[in-house]
Amino acid sequence: MTHHRIDLNADIGESFGAYTIGNDKGILPFISSANIACGFHAGDPSIMRKTVTLALQYNVAIGAHPGFQDMISFGRREMKVTPEEVYELTLYQIGALQAFVSAEGGTLQHVKPHGALYNMSAKDARLAEAIARAIYQLNPKLRLYGLANSKLIEAGRKIGLETVTEIFADRTYQRDGSLTPRSHPNALITNTEKAIEQVMQIIKEQQVTTIDGSTIKLQGQTVCIHGDGENAIQFAQQVSAALRKEKISIQNFTQKK
Amino acid sequence: MTHHRIDLNADIGESFGAYTIGNDKGILPFISSANIACGFHAGDPSIMRKTVTLALQYNVAIGAHPGFQDMISFGRREMKVTPEEVYELTLYQIGALQAFVSAEGGTLQHVKPHGALYNMSAKDARLAEAIARAIYQLNPKLRLYGLANSKLIEAGRKIGLETVTEIFADRTYQRDGSLTPRSHPNALITNTEKAIEQVMQIIKEQQVTTIDGSTIKLQGQTVCIHGDGENAIQFAQQVSAALRKEKISIQNFTQKK
Amino acid sequence: MTHHRIDLNADIGESFGAYTIGNDKGILPFISSANIACGFHAGDPSIMRKTVTLALQYNVAIGAHPGFQDMISFGRREMKVTPEEVYELTLYQIGALQAFVSAEGGTLQHVKPHGALYNMSAKDARLAEAIARAIYQLNPKLRLYGLANSKLIEAGRKIGLETVTEIFADRTYQRDGSLTPRSHPNALITNTEKAIEQVMQIIKEQQVTTIDGSTIKLQGQTVCIHGDGENAIQFAQQVSAALRKEKISIQNFTQKK
Amino acid sequence: MTHHRIDLNADIGESFGAYTIGNDKGILPFISSANIACGFHAGDPSIMRKTVTLALQYNVAIGAHPGFQDMISFGRREMKVTPEEVYELTLYQIGALQAFVSAEGGTLQHVKPHGALYNMSAKDARLAEAIARAIYQLNPKLRLYGLANSKLIEAGRKIGLETVTEIFADRTYQRDGSLTPRSHPNALITNTEKAIEQVMQIIKEQQVTTIDGSTIKLQGQTVCIHGDGENAIQFAQQVSAALRKEKISIQNFTQKK
Repeated sequence: MTHHRIDLNADIGESFGAYTIGNDKGILPFISSANIACGFHAGDPSIMRKTVTLALQYNVAIGAHPGFQDMISFGRREMKVTPEEVYELTLYQIGALQAFVSAEGGTLQHVKPHGALYNMSAKDARLAEAIARAIYQLNPKLRLYGLANSKLIEAGRKIGLETVTEIFADRTYQRDGSLTPRSHPNALITNTEKAIEQVMQIIKEQQVTTIDGSTIKLQGQTVCIHGDGENAIQFAQQVSAALRKEKISIQNFTQKK
Repeated sequence: MTHHRIDLNADIGESFGAYTIGNDKGILPFISSANIACGFHAGDPSIMRKTVTLALQYNVAIGAHPGFQDMISFGRREMKVTPEEVYELTLYQIGALQAFVSAEGGTLQHVKPHGALYNMSAKDARLAEAIARAIYQLNPKLRLYGLANSKLIEAGRKIGLETVTEIFADRTYQRDGSLTPRSHPNALITNTEKAIEQVMQIIKEQQVTTIDGSTIKLQGQTVCIHGDGENAIQFAQQVSAALRKEKISIQNFTQKK
Repeated sequence: MTHHRIDLNADIGESFGAYTIGNDKGILPFISSANIACGFHAGDPSIMRKTVTLALQYNVAIGAHPGFQDMISFGRREMKVTPEEVYELTLYQIGALQAFVSAEGGTLQHVKPHGALYNMSAKDARLAEAIARAIYQLNPKLRLYGLANSKLIEAGRKIGLETVTEIFADRTYQRDGSLTPRSHPNALITNTEKAIEQVMQIIKEQQVTTIDGSTIKLQGQTVCIHGDGENAIQFAQQVSAALRKEKISIQNFTQKK
Repeated sequence: MTHHRIDLNADIGESFGAYTIGNDKGILPFISSANIACGFHAGDPSIMRKTVTLALQYNVAIGAHPGFQDMISFGRREMKVTPEEVYELTLYQIGALQAFVSAEGGTLQHVKPHGALYNMSAKDARLAEAIARAIYQLNPKLRLYGLANSKLIEAGRKIGLETVTEIFADRTYQRDGSLTPRSHPNALITNTEKAIEQVMQIIKEQQVTTIDGSTIKLQGQTVCIHGDGENAIQFAQQVSAALRKEKISIQNFTQKK
């Protein structure tokens, strides 16, 4: 990655049956990659088909977004799982989503774990390895999206997957490169300009100013855009516009450079 | 198919979490193809992995066994579904199972719908077409298992899939080639010798004596062996022995002739 | 019931986990009775507690709103169920909701089946009887809400429950007193004034003009207000205002006359 | 409690749909109280009805056995839950079971949390308090079963519930009165005679010999008998016989002394 390109990703396909979350059609024009829920923490077979079709229409690269089978918490609740269970639930969900992508003539680009699975595998090497192995055994060409500096990225590299480090526009960083916990008063960047500034700093300088004012190195290849907030679409539009203005191309990893 | 070979199939992988149904290890030595539950009516990611591994060890060909997302009825309860829903739930489940088969280095041979989905798609051309289309769009080399003389077999042939007609050892047939409904007092063949006799008649003569004493044509390429009854293993063993005695080879559609 | 009072009811508490449906706080000021989902087709323990508390704050009478355990269809999909299964799922759900009502110091007023369960029990006497029996055996003082002229109302009366006949503001009626099926082009009354006119006609004259222009007798003790449409709150407000203008009091069956 | 009486309890009603766990009819003759699953970690409305009816036939006192909504782990997997969630899921499940007990003319005696909920509430005072409060607000006459020396028993006493301390026949104790963790090689007592000896020691002497050979005080009012092991029924029979031989009456808390 150079400072001339960046991938913008968003979680979509998170509706379920009669329930709607997010504005998938609204966010798709601004992103280059989409993480599609696979029916465990959100999504269902019908939503998955519609969402895959939609992403292909917008020429947005598709990733599987597996999560815990715990819809009541939207996959956000940590639970005691073994690496074997994580391997199995990851494999299952990627397979299910891949079937829709294949049936529509598309190609799956990546896998990004969701919610508690994302957070737990960022810190726990054994769970991270289980996810990386599930992906690798199914298709070693799939990319693994994970938090920059996480165990998940490490595990992906180790097994031989291409990894994509994810950074956040609206979260502050600590000196050790980790995200400031949400419990901290300054965890979130609510000011759009500051959020865009942080993204620019990471892309152009490959470093970030941490919450305590120091500057650390941080590489990011994809920026997570939240699609379900009140001003989500507007924010996506502003980030997108700022990037174009700086001649930073918004590009996924499937498109030719 | 000639009268010198037949496929024996059984539904396996129907356990769930702490719950066990069937004796998969007991039935595997006697069958040539296995239909593995995909987590909707039975099975879970962990059971699926174990079952796929087991089937590969026994050199038994693997099929996806998709059913309604209705575990409380074991997928046996008919429900009002649209062809779109059937297409989607079939695609989802095949994809999920296929991931486990691929990860273990195997190849998926076929798809056989389960329970109410099997019965409804035997009679309803639109649901049958939805299943056939889901399979075809995912992988046109997958075989479709269905009841002999059913709408499902018709739909499979029409779309261009190789179909495998299924017959039952322990169910009687009516004059029109359909199974005698379970509500009928003579629906079941409980005598093992008679059940084996019926199988032999279908394989060797390609006809069956119906419940009213007439003889009709009936072609069957695979025999369904139930794995969860009390004497299931014993019955499988007896059918298997009877076939071998008659020099009828028990063979799936993946093995070379 | 005289023409001086009517009950207005709405289905609320239909959110689930991170998913929101309806605007419960918006509709509560205009209704006198609320049907609260019980966790099978919609709702969860947390939503149920919040919704019960909210209904009590607004002094709105509470009913259990049991449905099929089929969240993916929001309980709207017909399925082949036995009267025993209907008895059991009804009893389970009423019990669960009643616990929240009791814990908050309230009293459960009624039971109104949801979606496919409502429609199926309107026509099928055996399912209707199963619902009525579940209610009666748990608490014979609970009222049963059902479609006017339905098998459900019949079953409730027969077993000794107080029944409440429900009418619809936004649906047309056929000559036999049944609702015009949704497949019919004139099934819905989309004009608010006409909808209110129909409600007034039923309350004041105890008759309704059917879709073919004839006039039939129709008694209704409660009007169903849909809470999840785009103009739901506005419509509720208008119906409420029209009733007050005509000095028809909006009253549930718990409040003193 | 004196040394002349003891309650024997077992978890029953843990089957689900087509899946069977345990031998409820086999264990019921030997126990005085039954903990019935409520549909979250095990059980379903139909199983609940059958099990309640069965327990009443055997004159066994009924308790609700609420667990996490995580059937795939049989409620055994710890998950990050808030006290509010625990309050709500407990209340929901007690209400559901109570409906079946009421409909059959019985009375609910107690509540005993299941699996991970049991273990977590034994150690976490806030979760313990949430369970105690759910029970108390629904019906302050319900007894709370919990591990002897646990936070759960403490919380129950504090809020004003009658508590019942549970001891285990087949688990060893540590010096601080807690159970030896299952990871320890001597956690389990597999010898039936030794297990019965431990029960007798606790009942008669109100003390137990710990794993390191010391003797500590331990009061137990109920003994948990596992119903799903291979020799479960035989073990129940032997414990029961040993107690009767020693003139210790097996008695729940509903029967008159």
